[in-house]
Amino acid sequence: MLPRLASRSRPFLATQKRYKWGSNLPPNILKFQYAVRGELAIKASHYEKLLSEGAKLPFDRVTFCNIGNPHQLGQKPITFYRQVISLVENPELMKQTGVFPKDVIERAQHYLKSCNNATGAYSDSRGLLEARKAVAQFIRDRDGIQDPNYTSVDHIYLSNGASPAIQDCLKLIINGEKDGIMIPIPQYPLYSGSVPLLGGTSVGYYLDEDKQWGLNIDELSRAIVDARSHGLRPRALVVINPGNPTGSCLSTENIAEILKFAHREGLIVLADEVYQRNCYEAGKPFSSFKKVHHSIPDIADLPLLSFHSISKGLTGECGKRGGYVEMTGVDAAVHEQYYKLASMSLCPNVVGQLILALQLNPPKAGDPSYALFRQEEEAIFNSLKNRAHIVWKTLNGLEGIECQKPDGALYAFPKITLPRKAIEAATKLGKAPDVMYCLELLDETGLCVVPGSGFGQVKGTFHFRTTILPLEAHLEQVLHKFAEWHKKFLAKYQ
Amino acid sequence: MLPRLASRSRPFLATQKRYKWGSNLPPNILKFQYAVRGELAIKASHYEKLLSEGAKLPFDRVTFCNIGNPHQLGQKPITFYRQVISLVENPELMKQTGVFPKDVIERAQHYLKSCNNATGAYSDSRGLLEARKAVAQFIRDRDGIQDPNYTSVDHIYLSNGASPAIQDCLKLIINGEKDGIMIPIPQYPLYSGSVPLLGGTSVGYYLDEDKQWGLNIDELSRAIVDARSHGLRPRALVVINPGNPTGSCLSTENIAEILKFAHREGLIVLADEVYQRNCYEAGKPFSSFKKVHHSIPDIADLPLLSFHSISKGLTGECGKRGGYVEMTGVDAAVHEQYYKLASMSLCPNVVGQLILALQLNPPKAGDPSYALFRQEEEAIFNSLKNRAHIVWKTLNGLEGIECQKPDGALYAFPKITLPRKAIEAATKLGKAPDVMYCLELLDETGLCVVPGSGFGQVKGTFHFRTTILPLEAHLEQVLHKFAEWHKKFLAKYQ
Repeated sequence: MLPRLASRSRPFLATQKRYKWGSNLPPNILKFQYAVRGELAIKASHYEKLLSEGAKLPFDRVTFCNIGNPHQLGQKPITFYRQVISLVENPELMKQTGVFPKDVIERAQHYLKSCNNATGAYSDSRGLLEARKAVAQFIRDRDGIQDPNYTSVDHIYLSNGASPAIQDCLKLIINGEKDGIMIPIPQYPLYSGSVPLLGGTSVGYYLDEDKQWGLNIDELSRAIVDARSHGLRPRALVVINPGNPTGSCLSTENIAEILKFAHREGLIVLADEVYQRNCYEAGKPFSSFKKVHHSIPDIADLPLLSFHSISKGLTGECGKRGGYVEMTGVDAAVHEQYYKLASMSLCPNVVGQLILALQLNPPKAGDPSYALFRQEEEAIFNSLKNRAHIVWKTLNGLEGIECQKPDGALYAFPKITLPRKAIEAATKLGKAPDVMYCLELLDETGLCVVPGSGFGQVKGTFHFRTTILPLEAHLEQVLHKFAEWHKKFLAKYQ
Repeated sequence: MLPRLASRSRPFLATQKRYKWGSNLPPNILKFQYAVRGELAIKASHYEKLLSEGAKLPFDRVTFCNIGNPHQLGQKPITFYRQVISLVENPELMKQTGVFPKDVIERAQHYLKSCNNATGAYSDSRGLLEARKAVAQFIRDRDGIQDPNYTSVDHIYLSNGASPAIQDCLKLIINGEKDGIMIPIPQYPLYSGSVPLLGGTSVGYYLDEDKQWGLNIDELSRAIVDARSHGLRPRALVVINPGNPTGSCLSTENIAEILKFAHREGLIVLADEVYQRNCYEAGKPFSSFKKVHHSIPDIADLPLLSFHSISKGLTGECGKRGGYVEMTGVDAAVHEQYYKLASMSLCPNVVGQLILALQLNPPKAGDPSYALFRQEEEAIFNSLKNRAHIVWKTLNGLEGIECQKPDGALYAFPKITLPRKAIEAATKLGKAPDVMYCLELLDETGLCVVPGSGFGQVKGTFHFRTTILPLEAHLEQVLHKFAEWHKKFLAKYQ
């Protein structure tokens, strides 16, 4: 191993102890966790591979209820979106007469024109102007405020899904471990993962399970006072609405309280609103943080970051990776730095940008594609609503399980009362009890859910998150299988 | 602004000095620079917007030679790739007889099957198995080593282009400002941008302009000794081959020297090989770092990270965002952490993954699409080669400009000898002289190039980077316009 070059007389340092990368990984990397694709998901993928190779397992299929991935479980894409994309990718197809509805062709032509026929080129790092215009108009229509100053294309940044946008925003906020980011407990693990990865500290605030996972301002106050008493500087407040994993939908009044609290305390608000189309209760419609922010003139300088996505809602185009952040009440200096950061990755993928533009500007009444589009969206919405109800009802009816009703999003997050012997068995294995529960469920049934410890929960309580996404035809069977297994589990550890 | 909630008796801290986000951005964010989309590019976009609004400027179009974005300047996509994607997006089109060649349909069916007909679903965080298989087979074919152990799908991670993969790898390497990353001068600014952003320190090594920007091992030694004498821990060595912005293609022997140096010094090697299809000189073919690594048994434990992309080569699908990193000689612990990091962003976009699979596994002789595919690729290759030659020849013929011949990649990086008065004028403006040169060029001609200071250069020398990408029909005009302007600039400051 002696270097040939050493024969030349150059001032190499004496051989040091060899640097081993794998033993020297940065602590921020080692310590963060991301449960949605963690131990359970990796094991589930392994089982799926074994089954595809013909292995004999106690189940003949793996059902991935660990992640909100609708198309994986059979939800179909919206026809209009895909037709337009196929034309944009392959404009030669416009020559085929009678294949595409007129509005599909017009839309494809419009998008092609808006990027000089070069959908293969990098776009502006913020996203195509045309797509950002669609976002801005969507926000005006959603919030019923047509004032063009209500929202600006210059405050909207497209991204490869909401997750990278959230991470980029946190990069601009976190400046050392004293910087605290307030996140709900339970929360989507992107937050508990990203904050330590970026060198900051998570400040948890508890959602109130007994009040359908409500967000209580007293609890926010407790958490921030506690954080400051530990020498932290709380910098930002994350709110997920509708809630993941809780399915809770916040009222306008609650959002107003939250925004005033954040303003008073000098916090930046991150409003994760990717489930805004997934509100199933007529009495609990979605209220946007943006609109409530606008309604309180006193807090105009409160920085609000609102995130949206094409992965959820009724679109479910997770694999396309598309989303945006809109920044309200934010200094020019922040915009400048965010733009620079975004430009380092050149641009979000253009197909994801166009799907976002399509989702936010779908066919209108009178358009040739409208009837089919509406039928598809309604079928998906009604089915999701129905499945949310069935999952909640079934789980809540089982011994040892208590499930709050999810009014929105794509999940249920039931509380499980584990027998003392199960807790002892888990302790012996060195596993969290809810992890052991979910591992046994996977090993014995092929159902993959995520333990509550990945999302955060009150100490001594146990939960798991399951999506509501198996299609109706399969869902009953899944729930039946789960119920049978759960009974056996309780009996085993009784 | 007094909070209503303050009337409740809760322990809020006394109002502190209000935290202003824009004045408190993290220093790592503020200090990094990314010149390719910096001041010049932003101004150029602004001019383009003004022109589209009918403004009168000294030019009637902006020509973006600041970024390797082939489709933006008129390069057409490869038909086969786009046909397959249009079918995958919209499988209903398979019913149209006589529209798609047989191999297009078969390929689309194959990809659809490989993701259970759900291209809208999140894939494995590493990328679709089918796409990773295409990468692995491509590497075996490229390097002429068919041993299946030569490369493994488990060591390949797909990404939204090479840039995010490079940044993710650096996250796993950099653990504080003492960690040095060796980068060439000149280099692609992703590196000089990412290293300080991630909290590390760049250690520059100079390429030898007089030897066609060659990479000299003596200079690597000088740089690492110098870095260590300043208390740094050099951790990794970045090599861009073919070079960006230099166009230099490394020989097999040179790569062997570099790898042995890295092994001896305990460095991780990042081989940025995104221009591997862009080698224009028959006598200087592309040599992969992977193959040379394999040929030296003594260095089997040297970590090598090789990056590739769909944005460059003959594909130019920049907007699709697709690429990969292959990791060789890397511990399981590194794989585990990289996988976790990748999973936080769920997956790279699936269309980009499929374009990558297509690029690396294109039609073969005998396939119905082969003739057209080959014709398209050859036309692009020959045209790029021709344009590289024309740009070099023209620039090198101008007074005050000396341009090394680019044997590869998509750029020329000429040295400009600026008159003393120009340097004085720039100093008065508080601008680097090459920045002033490029700004005047943009203001007066609409040509957008990037100053050498964005890439790094020997102190007291000045350069700029221009792409060779304007199509032939336009290129002569662009070069003529540049030459006229350059003469005027010299005269102005004589």
